[in-house]
Amino acid sequence: MPSNISGSSFLLHNVYVQSVGTTAGKLEGEGPLGKYFDKKCQDHYNGQDSYEKAEISMLKEAIDFSHQNLGIKSEDINMYFGGDLNNQITATNYTAKQLMRPFIGMYAACATIGLTIGNAALMIENGSLENANVIVASHNATAERQFRYPNEYGIQKPETTTFTATGATSVVLSKQQQKVRIESVTFGKVTDYNQTNPNDMGRAMAPAAYDTLHTHLQDLGRDGTYYDIILTGDLSSYGKTILEEMMKKGNINYHQYDDCGCLLYDAEQEVFQGGSGVVCSALVTFGYIYQKMLEGTYKRVLILSTGALLSPVMTNQKQSIPCICHGFSLEVAK
Amino acid sequence: MPSNISGSSFLLHNVYVQSVGTTAGKLEGEGPLGKYFDKKCQDHYNGQDSYEKAEISMLKEAIDFSHQNLGIKSEDINMYFGGDLNNQITATNYTAKQLMRPFIGMYAACATIGLTIGNAALMIENGSLENANVIVASHNATAERQFRYPNEYGIQKPETTTFTATGATSVVLSKQQQKVRIESVTFGKVTDYNQTNPNDMGRAMAPAAYDTLHTHLQDLGRDGTYYDIILTGDLSSYGKTILEEMMKKGNINYHQYDDCGCLLYDAEQEVFQGGSGVVCSALVTFGYIYQKMLEGTYKRVLILSTGALLSPVMTNQKQSIPCICHGFSLEVAK
Repeated sequence: MPSNISGSSFLLHNVYVQSVGTTAGKLEGEGPLGKYFDKKCQDHYNGQDSYEKAEISMLKEAIDFSHQNLGIKSEDINMYFGGDLNNQITATNYTAKQLMRPFIGMYAACATIGLTIGNAALMIENGSLENANVIVASHNATAERQFRYPNEYGIQKPETTTFTATGATSVVLSKQQQKVRIESVTFGKVTDYNQTNPNDMGRAMAPAAYDTLHTHLQDLGRDGTYYDIILTGDLSSYGKTILEEMMKKGNINYHQYDDCGCLLYDAEQEVFQGGSGVVCSALVTFGYIYQKMLEGTYKRVLILSTGALLSPVMTNQKQSIPCICHGFSLEVAK
Repeated sequence: MPSNISGSSFLLHNVYVQSVGTTAGKLEGEGPLGKYFDKKCQDHYNGQDSYEKAEISMLKEAIDFSHQNLGIKSEDINMYFGGDLNNQITATNYTAKQLMRPFIGMYAACATIGLTIGNAALMIENGSLENANVIVASHNATAERQFRYPNEYGIQKPETTTFTATGATSVVLSKQQQKVRIESVTFGKVTDYNQTNPNDMGRAMAPAAYDTLHTHLQDLGRDGTYYDIILTGDLSSYGKTILEEMMKKGNINYHQYDDCGCLLYDAEQEVFQGGSGVVCSALVTFGYIYQKMLEGTYKRVLILSTGALLSPVMTNQKQSIPCICHGFSLEVAK
């Protein structure tokens, strides 16, 4: 049974990462972490005739990689938990129809990886499931069209913009002991600091990241130095600086802090402030960091997956942008 | 601990409905169940200047009703689970920012009430939470504009259309013994029977309802007559006939079967095949049926909340409409 500390944070003891599958877009594959991903797509279409279908195909491929590693079929999974950035979480729903098992659809924008990992892990810890499969995706072309402007429109972007990452990640969890486990989960609350600019998500999300980090450390009675590295999802370089300042003011110490949006791309790749999107933190965490944990580079990692709950309809109505951050920690099992 | 039968169905023993709050739109308030709702709105705006803000205000009111009944504040809730039909589940996210507690955002279209009740109930049963609050909403004007055409456009609708219900529902669950409890949960899989008409959701969803019903009865070793009444979410009169035929062919017996979409409105109200939308089954289940259980009319009720995972972008790409159904049973506690 998990220790429920505040209704926000949970300590887990029996949930292990069994297998990971990752599909990266072209730019993501060409970036510094490219070699860690199972597949690097040639272009935005991945052999399909629409961006949405491309995103669906990338997600199915990521799932297949993670299942092939274990020699299992999609029906061997108890339950799937997933989401993406498309309206009606289209990529995961259309992928789920090929899986023939119950599907729990979730939405927390780019924080969906934290939300789905958290819920799937708790269900396993509690004995409700033998195993679960977390599936997430995002696509630069579907997200830009939906939330801002189609890339083809060629609008000039402000400096504060982030770049939605393309790709998909599948993570199989179960009770079977493995080297890396989900050690804790902290679910975040929706915060709103009155930001209204859909091209400046880093500034909007930093307070949500801080709130969940603070809650996490307080709930578990930990100092930030408990972790070898603390990672935020997609604050990118501008939002990262803001969070660093907030941690300094809040007297939160840490060994190392970075942002997945800053790790996924080279500074020379034209991605403005860095990467964003649900698969940005998913690819970095389960493609790169997970490998580094298997190799022994990191033993304890805290992931703060951040999400801007941006809605174009609400932005048009001059409403501010609420944000959320769901955190979880990975630990090398003794 | 819940008995996990197939990874789809769970028997629960310790989760009780503490309190319910309901806000109904104008038409829903004028319908045959109007007297069961806490508030009946005067119009689509509910005193706000946009339909989205109206939906948010209705949801906040429903939450307030359910908390007032218990004399609690929003911070007394361990965790909120919710969703709605808007892109980026806007109504619940914007409401959640007023609640100051962790928020689990979910999306299963009109089946979101089943999905959120199921997850919240399991977390309580497992001891992860003391209590939880399920919050859902839908609004005819926001949904019609987003999924089909704005009402103001005045397009002629085909006979197979359903009518998205307006309103909001809040359900507080906890371990504290009360008269009505959540007795079981069955999570559904995404099904697709190649329906492509966004104006004929009943036909698309009936197979998903049948699939979850069949799984539920098989998992729990039950006959349909175990329940005093089986209710589907929003198949409405056309889809209801299809499910009746499927149950006949599948030799599923039952005492009484009806659809929430057929109960919410009078035949004389101009709602085509009947009601739909996430709040349609939520209002009927937790406004009306719950009251009838408190009065002793029903002792065991199965709710099959149905959802068409319709996406206008995918419909424009000539893709079929996947559907899902998440079921749960309510029982008068001994």
